[in-house]
Amino acid sequence: MPQIAELLSANQAYAAARAHVADPRPSRHIAVVTCMDARIDVFAVLGLHLGEAHVIRNAGGRVTEDVLRSLALSSGVLGVDTAVVMQHTKCGLFGVDDAQLRELTGADLGFLPIDDHVAALREDVERLAGTPYLSQLQVIAGLVYDVESGQLEDVVRWERAG
Amino acid sequence: MPQIAELLSANQAYAAARAHVADPRPSRHIAVVTCMDARIDVFAVLGLHLGEAHVIRNAGGRVTEDVLRSLALSSGVLGVDTAVVMQHTKCGLFGVDDAQLRELTGADLGFLPIDDHVAALREDVERLAGTPYLSQLQVIAGLVYDVESGQLEDVVRWERAG
Repeated sequence: MPQIAELLSANQAYAAARAHVADPRPSRHIAVVTCMDARIDVFAVLGLHLGEAHVIRNAGGRVTEDVLRSLALSSGVLGVDTAVVMQHTKCGLFGVDDAQLRELTGADLGFLPIDDHVAALREDVERLAGTPYLSQLQVIAGLVYDVESGQLEDVVRWERAG
Repeated sequence: MPQIAELLSANQAYAAARAHVADPRPSRHIAVVTCMDARIDVFAVLGLHLGEAHVIRNAGGRVTEDVLRSLALSSGVLGVDTAVVMQHTKCGLFGVDDAQLRELTGADLGFLPIDDHVAALREDVERLAGTPYLSQLQVIAGLVYDVESGQLEDVVRWERAG
Protein backbone atom coordinates (compact mmCIF):
# COMPACT_ATOMS: atom_id res chain seq x y z
CA MET A 1 0.00 0.00 0.00
CA PRO A 2 2.53 2.60 -1.13
CA GLN A 3 -0.10 5.36 -1.20
CA ILE A 4 -0.74 5.06 2.52
CA ALA A 5 2.97 4.69 3.34
CA GLU A 6 3.71 7.95 1.52
CA LEU A 7 1.03 9.79 3.48
CA LEU A 8 2.41 8.47 6.77
CA SER A 9 5.95 9.40 5.80
CA ALA A 10 4.94 12.97 4.90
CA ASN A 11 3.17 13.20 8.24
CA GLN A 12 6.40 12.52 10.15
CA ALA A 13 7.99 15.62 8.62
CA TYR A 14 4.90 17.69 9.36
CA ALA A 15 4.62 16.52 12.97
CA ALA A 16 8.18 17.58 13.68
CA ALA A 17 7.58 21.14 12.46
CA ARG A 18 3.89 21.76 13.01
CA ALA A 19 2.12 24.67 14.66
CA HIS A 20 -0.02 23.58 17.59
CA VAL A 21 -3.39 25.13 18.38
CA ALA A 22 -5.09 23.92 21.56
CA ASP A 23 -8.51 25.60 21.37
CA PRO A 24 -11.12 23.67 19.36
CA ARG A 25 -13.24 26.82 18.89
CA PRO A 26 -12.47 28.42 15.51
CA SER A 27 -10.76 31.71 16.39
CA ARG A 28 -12.38 33.61 13.52
CA HIS A 29 -15.82 32.09 14.29
CA ILE A 30 -16.16 30.92 10.68
CA ALA A 31 -17.32 27.65 9.12
CA VAL A 32 -16.72 27.05 5.42
CA VAL A 33 -18.86 24.57 3.47
CA THR A 34 -17.26 23.68 0.16
CA CYS A 35 -16.70 20.97 -2.43
CA MET A 36 -14.34 18.00 -2.04
CA ASP A 37 -12.74 18.98 -5.39
CA ALA A 38 -8.97 18.33 -5.44
CA ARG A 39 -8.34 21.76 -6.97
CA ILE A 40 -9.49 23.72 -3.91
CA ASP A 41 -6.98 24.54 -1.16
CA VAL A 42 -9.50 26.06 1.25
CA PHE A 43 -7.02 27.72 3.63
CA ALA A 44 -5.10 29.30 0.73
CA VAL A 45 -8.18 30.43 -1.23
CA LEU A 46 -9.61 32.29 1.77
CA GLY A 47 -6.44 33.29 3.61
CA LEU A 48 -7.27 31.08 6.58
CA HIS A 49 -4.76 29.63 9.05
CA LEU A 50 -4.74 26.72 11.46
CA GLY A 51 -7.34 27.06 14.19
CA GLU A 52 -9.39 29.77 12.50
CA ALA A 53 -12.30 27.98 10.79
CA HIS A 54 -14.25 24.77 10.54
CA VAL A 55 -14.08 23.25 7.06
CA ILE A 56 -16.93 21.03 5.88
CA ARG A 57 -16.59 19.43 2.43
CA ASN A 58 -18.68 17.14 0.26
CA ALA A 59 -19.45 16.65 -3.42
CA GLY A 60 -20.61 20.03 -4.68
CA GLY A 61 -20.37 21.95 -1.43
CA ARG A 62 -24.11 21.42 -0.99
CA VAL A 63 -26.02 21.90 2.27
CA THR A 64 -27.13 18.38 3.23
CA GLU A 65 -28.45 16.82 6.44
CA ASP A 66 -24.86 15.95 7.31
CA VAL A 67 -23.78 19.58 6.87
CA LEU A 68 -26.60 20.64 9.21
CA ARG A 69 -25.40 18.08 11.78
CA SER A 70 -21.87 19.50 11.55
CA LEU A 71 -22.99 23.14 11.74
CA ALA A 72 -25.24 22.40 14.74
CA LEU A 73 -22.00 21.64 16.60
CA SER A 74 -20.06 24.55 15.03
CA SER A 75 -22.64 27.17 15.86
CA GLY A 76 -24.33 25.62 18.89
CA VAL A 77 -21.24 24.50 20.80
CA LEU A 78 -18.07 25.94 19.25
CA GLY A 79 -18.85 29.64 18.75
CA VAL A 80 -19.21 29.87 14.97
CA ASP A 81 -21.38 32.82 13.89
CA THR A 82 -20.41 33.11 10.21
CA ALA A 83 -20.95 30.48 7.51
CA VAL A 84 -19.54 30.56 3.98
CA VAL A 85 -20.95 28.23 1.32
CA MET A 86 -18.38 28.10 -1.48
CA GLN A 87 -19.28 26.25 -4.68
CA HIS A 88 -17.03 26.37 -7.74
CA THR A 89 -16.78 26.47 -11.51
CA LYS A 90 -16.04 23.27 -13.46
CA CYS A 91 -17.72 21.24 -10.72
CA GLY A 92 -18.58 17.66 -11.65
CA LEU A 93 -22.12 18.25 -10.37
CA PHE A 94 -22.73 21.20 -12.69
CA GLY A 95 -24.83 20.71 -15.80
CA VAL A 96 -25.54 17.01 -15.23
CA ASP A 97 -28.61 15.32 -13.77
CA ASP A 98 -29.27 12.49 -11.34
CA ALA A 99 -30.07 10.01 -14.11
CA GLN A 100 -26.65 10.55 -15.71
CA LEU A 101 -24.85 10.36 -12.37
CA ARG A 102 -26.68 7.16 -11.42
CA GLU A 103 -25.57 5.59 -14.67
CA LEU A 104 -21.96 6.74 -14.23
CA THR A 105 -21.64 5.63 -10.60
CA GLY A 106 -23.99 2.66 -10.37
CA ALA A 107 -25.37 4.27 -7.20
CA ASP A 108 -29.09 4.92 -6.85
CA LEU A 109 -28.67 8.19 -4.96
CA GLY A 110 -29.77 11.80 -5.19
CA PHE A 111 -26.53 13.60 -6.09
CA LEU A 112 -27.71 17.23 -5.69
CA PRO A 113 -26.55 18.33 -9.13
CA ILE A 114 -26.28 22.05 -9.85
CA ASP A 115 -28.05 23.69 -12.80
CA ASP A 116 -27.36 27.25 -11.82
CA HIS A 117 -24.91 28.37 -9.12
CA VAL A 118 -26.96 31.39 -8.06
CA ALA A 119 -30.07 29.25 -7.56
CA ALA A 120 -28.15 26.48 -5.77
CA LEU A 121 -26.40 28.92 -3.44
CA ARG A 122 -29.62 30.77 -2.71
CA GLU A 123 -31.34 27.48 -1.86
CA ASP A 124 -28.46 26.35 0.37
CA VAL A 125 -28.09 29.68 2.17
CA GLU A 126 -31.85 29.81 2.77
CA ARG A 127 -31.78 26.30 4.19
CA LEU A 128 -29.12 27.33 6.71
CA ALA A 129 -30.87 30.59 7.55
CA GLY A 130 -34.17 28.77 8.10
CA THR A 131 -32.86 26.01 10.36
CA PRO A 132 -34.00 26.79 13.93
CA TYR A 133 -31.07 25.15 15.71
CA LEU A 134 -28.60 27.26 13.67
CA SER A 135 -29.89 30.49 15.22
CA GLN A 136 -26.38 31.43 16.40
CA LEU A 137 -25.41 32.09 12.77
CA GLN A 138 -25.47 35.84 12.14
CA VAL A 139 -23.99 36.05 8.64
CA ILE A 140 -24.06 33.61 5.74
CA ALA A 141 -22.34 34.17 2.41
CA GLY A 142 -22.68 32.18 -0.83
CA LEU A 143 -19.61 32.37 -3.07
CA VAL A 144 -18.49 30.80 -6.34
CA TYR A 145 -14.79 29.96 -6.65
CA ASP A 146 -13.40 30.07 -10.17
CA VAL A 147 -10.90 27.18 -10.34
CA GLU A 148 -9.29 28.71 -13.43
CA SER A 149 -8.73 32.30 -12.24
CA GLY A 150 -8.53 31.52 -8.50
CA GLN A 151 -11.05 34.31 -7.84
CA LEU A 152 -14.25 34.36 -5.80
CA GLU A 153 -17.58 35.69 -6.95
CA ASP A 154 -19.71 37.09 -4.14
CA VAL A 155 -23.16 35.77 -5.03
CA VAL A 156 -25.49 35.65 -2.01
CA ARG A 157 -25.40 37.37 1.37
CA TRP A 158 -27.71 36.90 4.31
CA GLU A 159 -27.59 38.64 7.67
CA ARG A 160 -29.81 37.91 10.67
CA ALA A 161 -32.26 40.74 11.29
CA GLY A 162 -32.02 42.84 14.40
CA MET B 1 -19.78 41.98 7.39
CA PRO B 2 -16.05 42.41 8.02
CA GLN B 3 -15.50 38.64 8.25
CA ILE B 4 -16.60 38.09 4.66
CA ALA B 5 -14.74 41.17 3.38
CA GLU B 6 -11.49 39.84 4.88
CA LEU B 7 -11.95 36.48 3.17
CA LEU B 8 -12.57 38.16 -0.19
CA SER B 9 -9.57 40.42 0.25
CA ALA B 10 -7.27 37.47 1.05
CA ASN B 11 -8.60 35.74 -2.05
CA GLN B 12 -7.42 38.56 -4.31
CA ALA B 13 -3.83 37.98 -3.21
CA TYR B 14 -4.19 34.23 -3.66
CA ALA B 15 -5.73 34.50 -7.13
CA ALA B 16 -2.83 36.61 -8.34
CA ALA B 17 -0.26 34.00 -7.29
CA ARG B 18 -2.10 30.70 -7.38
CA ALA B 19 -1.14 27.39 -8.95
CA HIS B 20 -3.67 26.20 -11.50
CA VAL B 21 -4.61 22.54 -11.96
CA ALA B 22 -7.01 21.76 -14.82
CA ASP B 23 -7.76 18.06 -14.29
CA PRO B 24 -10.60 17.35 -11.84
CA ARG B 25 -9.37 13.76 -11.30
CA PRO B 26 -7.19 13.59 -8.16
CA SER B 27 -3.70 12.83 -9.47
CA ARG B 28 -2.82 10.56 -6.52
CA HIS B 29 -6.20 8.77 -6.74
CA ILE B 30 -6.85 9.47 -3.06
CA ALA B 31 -9.91 10.68 -1.15
CA VAL B 32 -9.52 11.76 2.48
CA VAL B 33 -12.51 11.75 4.84
CA THR B 34 -11.80 13.76 7.97
CA CYS B 35 -13.24 16.04 10.63
CA MET B 36 -14.17 19.71 10.12
CA ASP B 37 -11.99 20.56 13.16
CA ALA B 38 -10.20 23.91 12.74
CA ARG B 39 -6.93 22.38 13.97
CA ILE B 40 -6.50 20.07 10.96
CA ASP B 41 -4.69 21.36 7.86
CA VAL B 42 -5.36 18.28 5.71
CA PHE B 43 -2.86 19.04 2.93
CA ALA B 44 -0.08 19.75 5.44
CA VAL B 45 -0.82 16.78 7.71
CA LEU B 46 -0.62 14.31 4.82
CA GLY B 47 1.86 16.07 2.52
CA LEU B 48 -0.78 16.59 -0.18
CA HIS B 49 -0.71 19.28 -2.85
CA LEU B 50 -3.29 20.95 -5.05
CA GLY B 51 -4.97 18.52 -7.43
CA GLU B 52 -3.87 15.35 -5.66
CA ALA B 53 -6.82 14.29 -3.49
CA HIS B 54 -10.48 14.78 -2.76
CA VAL B 55 -11.10 16.07 0.74
CA ILE B 56 -14.42 15.30 2.43
CA ARG B 57 -15.01 16.77 5.90
CA ASN B 58 -17.79 16.69 8.47
CA ALA B 59 -18.16 16.64 12.23
CA GLY B 60 -16.06 13.73 13.43
CA GLY B 61 -14.84 12.52 10.05
CA ARG B 62 -17.58 9.88 10.14
CA VAL B 63 -18.81 7.88 7.13
CA THR B 64 -22.36 9.13 6.58
CA GLU B 65 -24.80 8.87 3.67
CA ASP B 66 -23.42 12.16 2.39
CA VAL B 67 -19.87 10.78 2.45
CA LEU B 68 -21.06 7.77 0.45
CA ARG B 69 -22.66 10.13 -2.10
CA SER B 70 -19.38 12.02 -2.43
CA LEU B 71 -17.24 8.89 -2.70
CA ALA B 72 -19.58 7.40 -5.32
CA LEU B 73 -18.46 10.28 -7.54
CA SER B 74 -14.80 10.09 -6.43
CA SER B 75 -14.41 6.40 -7.08
CA GLY B 76 -17.06 5.84 -9.76
CA VAL B 77 -16.30 8.84 -11.97
CA LEU B 78 -13.04 10.50 -10.95
CA GLY B 79 -10.56 7.64 -10.60
CA VAL B 80 -10.11 7.46 -6.82
CA ASP B 81 -8.98 4.00 -5.66
CA THR B 82 -7.67 4.81 -2.16
CA ALA B 83 -9.69 6.19 0.74
CA VAL B 84 -8.33 7.47 4.04
CA VAL B 85 -10.64 7.99 7.01
CA MET B 86 -8.81 10.24 9.46
CA GLN B 87 -10.38 10.89 12.84
CA HIS B 88 -8.52 12.77 15.58
CA THR B 89 -7.81 13.15 19.26
CA LYS B 90 -9.58 15.84 21.30
CA CYS B 91 -12.56 15.61 18.95
CA GLY B 92 -15.75 17.23 20.20
CA LEU B 93 -17.62 14.01 19.39
CA PHE B 94 -15.37 11.85 21.57
CA GLY B 95 -16.64 10.71 24.95
CA VAL B 96 -20.04 12.41 24.72
CA ASP B 97 -23.43 10.99 23.79
CA ASP B 98 -26.35 12.05 21.65
CA ALA B 99 -28.43 13.15 24.65
CA GLN B 100 -25.71 15.59 25.75
CA LEU B 101 -25.20 16.90 22.22
CA ARG B 102 -28.95 17.40 21.73
CA GLU B 103 -29.07 19.44 24.90
CA LEU B 104 -26.03 21.53 23.92
CA THR B 105 -27.18 22.24 20.35
CA GLY B 106 -30.96 22.22 20.62
CA ALA B 107 -30.96 19.93 17.57
CA ASP B 108 -32.77 16.61 17.68
CA LEU B 109 -30.21 14.78 15.54
CA GLY B 110 -28.02 11.70 15.68
CA PHE B 111 -24.51 13.17 16.02
CA LEU B 112 -22.46 9.98 15.54
CA PRO B 113 -20.44 10.41 18.73
CA ILE B 114 -17.25 8.36 19.16
CA ASP B 115 -16.67 6.15 22.22
CA ASP B 116 -13.58 4.44 20.92
CA HIS B 117 -11.56 5.47 17.86
CA VAL B 118 -10.60 1.93 16.89
CA ALA B 119 -14.22 0.80 16.93
CA ALA B 120 -15.47 3.90 15.09
CA LEU B 121 -12.79 3.61 12.39
CA ARG B 122 -13.40 -0.11 11.99
CA GLU B 123 -17.13 0.53 11.57
CA ASP B 124 -16.56 3.34 9.07
CA VAL B 125 -13.96 1.45 7.01
CA GLU B 126 -16.24 -1.61 6.92
CA ARG B 127 -19.12 0.53 5.74
CA LEU B 128 -17.04 1.82 2.82
CA ALA B 129 -15.66 -1.64 2.00
CA GLY B 130 -19.16 -3.12 2.01
CA THR B 131 -20.83 -0.53 -0.22
CA PRO B 132 -21.38 -2.14 -3.64
CA TYR B 133 -21.11 1.05 -5.68
CA LEU B 134 -17.70 1.82 -4.13
CA SER B 135 -16.16 -1.28 -5.70
CA GLN B 136 -13.45 0.81 -7.39
CA LEU B 137 -11.85 1.37 -3.97
CA GLN B 138 -8.88 -0.96 -3.59
CA VAL B 139 -7.35 0.29 -0.34
CA ILE B 140 -8.92 1.94 2.71
CA ALA B 141 -6.98 3.15 5.74
CA GLY B 142 -8.32 4.32 9.10
CA LEU B 143 -6.01 6.74 10.92
CA VAL B 144 -6.14 8.80 14.10
CA TYR B 145 -4.50 12.23 13.97
CA ASP B 146 -3.10 13.48 17.27
CA VAL B 147 -3.82 17.24 17.29
CA GLU B 148 -1.24 17.74 20.03
CA SER B 149 1.75 15.88 18.57
CA GLY B 150 0.78 16.28 14.89
CA GLN B 151 1.33 12.53 14.39
CA LEU B 152 -0.84 9.87 12.80
CA GLU B 153 -1.67 6.52 14.29
CA ASP B 154 -2.24 3.80 11.70
CA VAL B 155 -5.26 1.98 13.11
CA VAL B 156 -7.18 0.04 10.43
CA ARG B 157 -6.22 -1.19 6.97
CA TRP B 158 -8.39 -2.88 4.39
CA GLU B 159 -7.39 -4.07 0.94
CA ARG B 160 -9.72 -5.56 -1.67
CA ALA B 161 -9.09 -9.26 -2.15
CA GLY B 162 -7.89 -10.54 -5.51
